[in-house]
Amino acid sequence: MLGYFGPAGTFTHQALLSVSDEEAVALPSVAQALDAVRSGQIDGAVVPIENSVEGGVSATLDELIAGDPLVIVGEIVIPVTFGLYTRPGTRLEDVRHVLTHGHALAQVRQWLSRELPEALVTAAGSTAGAALEVADPGSRHDAAVCARVAGKIYGLDEVAYGIEDNPGAVTRFVMVGRPGPVPSRTGRDKTTLVAYMHEDRSGALLEILEQFAVRGVNLTRIESRPTKTFLGSYCFAIDAEGHLHDRRVTEALLGLHRICRDVIFLGSYARADKQPPDVPMGFSDADFHSATQWLATLERPNGDR
Amino acid sequence: MLGYFGPAGTFTHQALLSVSDEEAVALPSVAQALDAVRSGQIDGAVVPIENSVEGGVSATLDELIAGDPLVIVGEIVIPVTFGLYTRPGTRLEDVRHVLTHGHALAQVRQWLSRELPEALVTAAGSTAGAALEVADPGSRHDAAVCARVAGKIYGLDEVAYGIEDNPGAVTRFVMVGRPGPVPSRTGRDKTTLVAYMHEDRSGALLEILEQFAVRGVNLTRIESRPTKTFLGSYCFAIDAEGHLHDRRVTEALLGLHRICRDVIFLGSYARADKQPPDVPMGFSDADFHSATQWLATLERPNGDR
Amino acid sequence: MLGYFGPAGTFTHQALLSVSDEEAVALPSVAQALDAVRSGQIDGAVVPIENSVEGGVSATLDELIAGDPLVIVGEIVIPVTFGLYTRPGTRLEDVRHVLTHGHALAQVRQWLSRELPEALVTAAGSTAGAALEVADPGSRHDAAVCARVAGKIYGLDEVAYGIEDNPGAVTRFVMVGRPGPVPSRTGRDKTTLVAYMHEDRSGALLEILEQFAVRGVNLTRIESRPTKTFLGSYCFAIDAEGHLHDRRVTEALLGLHRICRDVIFLGSYARADKQPPDVPMGFSDADFHSATQWLATLERPNGDR
Amino acid sequence: MLGYFGPAGTFTHQALLSVSDEEAVALPSVAQALDAVRSGQIDGAVVPIENSVEGGVSATLDELIAGDPLVIVGEIVIPVTFGLYTRPGTRLEDVRHVLTHGHALAQVRQWLSRELPEALVTAAGSTAGAALEVADPGSRHDAAVCARVAGKIYGLDEVAYGIEDNPGAVTRFVMVGRPGPVPSRTGRDKTTLVAYMHEDRSGALLEILEQFAVRGVNLTRIESRPTKTFLGSYCFAIDAEGHLHDRRVTEALLGLHRICRDVIFLGSYARADKQPPDVPMGFSDADFHSATQWLATLERPNGDR
Repeated sequence: MLGYFGPAGTFTHQALLSVSDEEAVALPSVAQALDAVRSGQIDGAVVPIENSVEGGVSATLDELIAGDPLVIVGEIVIPVTFGLYTRPGTRLEDVRHVLTHGHALAQVRQWLSRELPEALVTAAGSTAGAALEVADPGSRHDAAVCARVAGKIYGLDEVAYGIEDNPGAVTRFVMVGRPGPVPSRTGRDKTTLVAYMHEDRSGALLEILEQFAVRGVNLTRIESRPTKTFLGSYCFAIDAEGHLHDRRVTEALLGLHRICRDVIFLGSYARADKQPPDVPMGFSDADFHSATQWLATLERPNGDR
Repeated sequence: MLGYFGPAGTFTHQALLSVSDEEAVALPSVAQALDAVRSGQIDGAVVPIENSVEGGVSATLDELIAGDPLVIVGEIVIPVTFGLYTRPGTRLEDVRHVLTHGHALAQVRQWLSRELPEALVTAAGSTAGAALEVADPGSRHDAAVCARVAGKIYGLDEVAYGIEDNPGAVTRFVMVGRPGPVPSRTGRDKTTLVAYMHEDRSGALLEILEQFAVRGVNLTRIESRPTKTFLGSYCFAIDAEGHLHDRRVTEALLGLHRICRDVIFLGSYARADKQPPDVPMGFSDADFHSATQWLATLERPNGDR
Repeated sequence: MLGYFGPAGTFTHQALLSVSDEEAVALPSVAQALDAVRSGQIDGAVVPIENSVEGGVSATLDELIAGDPLVIVGEIVIPVTFGLYTRPGTRLEDVRHVLTHGHALAQVRQWLSRELPEALVTAAGSTAGAALEVADPGSRHDAAVCARVAGKIYGLDEVAYGIEDNPGAVTRFVMVGRPGPVPSRTGRDKTTLVAYMHEDRSGALLEILEQFAVRGVNLTRIESRPTKTFLGSYCFAIDAEGHLHDRRVTEALLGLHRICRDVIFLGSYARADKQPPDVPMGFSDADFHSATQWLATLERPNGDR
Repeated sequence: MLGYFGPAGTFTHQALLSVSDEEAVALPSVAQALDAVRSGQIDGAVVPIENSVEGGVSATLDELIAGDPLVIVGEIVIPVTFGLYTRPGTRLEDVRHVLTHGHALAQVRQWLSRELPEALVTAAGSTAGAALEVADPGSRHDAAVCARVAGKIYGLDEVAYGIEDNPGAVTRFVMVGRPGPVPSRTGRDKTTLVAYMHEDRSGALLEILEQFAVRGVNLTRIESRPTKTFLGSYCFAIDAEGHLHDRRVTEALLGLHRICRDVIFLGSYARADKQPPDVPMGFSDADFHSATQWLATLERPNGDR
């Protein structure tokens, strides 16, 4: 069974539905969702990790690092797109009371004032909660601004879609599981890890980046987090192109482990954007293999060069 | 006149009081505090920028970058230390009802259950608000968990101090002003800036770090923030050791400007910890001066070597 | 007056003639040629510095470094091409006795055995001396293998040219003068210098190379030379793309001077191959200028970003 | 059987004698000495590779690279120390005629003019030849300036030793053999190799050095040599601290092989100076082993961190 950071009808829920039809359970916090994976209550949980506007979801990263090991087994990127959902039968021009969460409201304000200048807008605890309330035939609210999944779950009509004022924002979610064999290589993978340095000095980050650069591994993201020991002490969460089983990635991880105080491997998984890695000349598995074969000839009498 | 992210009685307020006796105005949000500086309503504002446990205060950084230029003119580091403050005359053993904010409660839970196992604890909207309420002689709450400054402002008795379960957490605040001559060099300074890369590739961060490393400038902090254009596009907020007027820093900034799409200078200011920089051999102002003098001899007949 | 490492009729002489019609004096060694410049006896000397097959001419480099300062003011690249030169009137098929230097012989052996299988070949002290001897009507040698310039000087007939077995070898010469204003920038220049490190460790060379790399300056050649103090102590002679007056080169030299024990500037001069430098984005003089202008705005009230 | 670049009585001979009592054959050139190893005529040859004053012996390096593979199996460092050797019975004050090679003469000129101001000095073809001549009872020369070994071989008396004007010069020799199992690790080893880059650009050398730096391998020497294809095309001969069987060296070689057009392994052997390598934290074999063990845990259920 899978789970997600709920409630039902949120973008996190939508992210999960985009990859699984399985029944899934909503958990009230990221921490509880991850702990349910740890305890074996569920086999995987979908949680948000990064937003293209707000940046990293620090709580998720901190919860992944703390406690028993967990790994990321997949990623999902979902556009943050809102729609206006009404109680069945209500047309756009009939909407008088709109219910939604404050964050969502901030993102659709221009649309509302243009399309529903007369409507009264009320803030709810969540967009999913707004949809639930609107679904109640006795409610005085007749429309909710929410994710499409919420409209569907609560049986509402979609009378407008893509109504956010600045389209293009996306949120990245990860599916988290317990450690075990990593998902098979797809050739279009990412690897996530957290590196703790021995000393807190600027040079250390440079050395970490060089461990990747010197093996031709590109990084797609780097986020510093406090180690919580003292001000100025950071660890670095890194997303690298490639899979643990790509030799250049394997070797970068080994190199990192040697120079760092600690490295936490958080998984290798297929990239949501399916973009192939940019592997510089000399860093494919074939190149690693050929170097190893060359090494083997060095101590042979009359070794071929 | 100065301002701060209020209300009165918070750690931000305490940070301001630790450096200024001037009358100051509390602003309800970081954005409003910074805008008050921009508009000239106040001359400087104290806002939180980083916590040793929670990490960067992204909102502050984002607000500093957006809108008209602002600069950091000073930093203040304050321990996050709570005390128990009672209505005058109430002794510790007489406390029955404690009022505080949920975050503060989480940090003093063990102390409360050990010292006041019988007390009823209620959550307030803020620790400063809790102190205000306790100060009311008609209140049923007789003690507040809050910052020392709140106890003092509302005339409460300090019956315990340093009651947090895990001491050592600190918050770093910055005093923000309008651009102008930077504060004088103290020899123990920091410079903050934000670098936007031309292309979003891992190599670009390495190049940015090298601009500092090659000039002997240590970094004390680096934080990635989304540029808000698309997922995977980041800028980097950097705290570097040294002052804009230190030649190694001047040159690193010039170098950065050349290789970056944009660099935002966010100020040079005295370090709160007064730690002198670690300047490697060859990177003092004297070394820069002596190199320049050497250059001048190169084109002279019989130039001395 | 100019001079060159003689005798007349060598490739060094030919190099000088390719750039100057002036009367010139032949000096018997590189050291004597350079000392004649130092003493003011001549204004410039042409000496060999590198061969595409043999590598650096260490003696020239060592002599340039030792003693009073000298600078390179130009470079000349000459193909090492041999011809067969006969006493006037002697046709190829009449040649019976060939005279040449051992080095030259080694490079035309195949041609001689194919074209003059019956000829007797004798070794002379130099190819120029061979030409001089052949010019003597009383000589029993009727042909010399030498540089074209020697054939011309001694009035011989060129009966074959380009007879080396492996064509393509070239020698690079430099014109050396006393320090003074460097030759004007042509936009296609080279700068030569020698760097002495503070400590003899591998990391130091990496740091030297980084001083260039971080300023976008390509190197065309690097040669290690012993400092003559103890085994394992080296200095590095470096040829860099660009002119002392190119800002990226100026700054690289300043940076080098700061991290090195000593830097000897050996001149900026037009490249023989006239190849334009590969200046990466951000490293043109215009980029340096624009960075400086940006810096000037940082301390202005309401400084533009 | 061993061989050396002769004749008998040279410093190269002395170098061989310092490590082997075996009978050995003198070969007339470095090329012939190395070819005798290649053909199996001898099992090893001692040849000079570097002098603390003159720099690298390019001919040796070029001959090692060209032709069938050879490897260095040991190194020997010998002080370049001259003595005055007389025909038995001749005392210093009786010396009238001194014979030696021009190079040697240049290095003992001051001593001779101080100690034997009246003596007549004649140049011989080699210092060993001078000793041979002096040993002849019928010779008019009664003393030779030569290496100690020559004095001993030809039965001369040592009447002075260490007479060079600038003491401290040393020459480094290598014992060269055919490829096969490399000599055992002593913990104080060196590895020699030659790297050919894919493109001839300055960045390539930086990348080569980084392959070593990022694995904590120090370099003790780097020498550029022309590839003999065109001017400006170089390969790099590198001496690195450590043994092929040190994991940091193994990995650096593999890394180098991947990014280079070609790498020629020229052997791992005990250092003459017996200096232990400076292995930075994280680069010992134990560190490599522990990183590998860590890697193995990553895919285990409930993998320990």
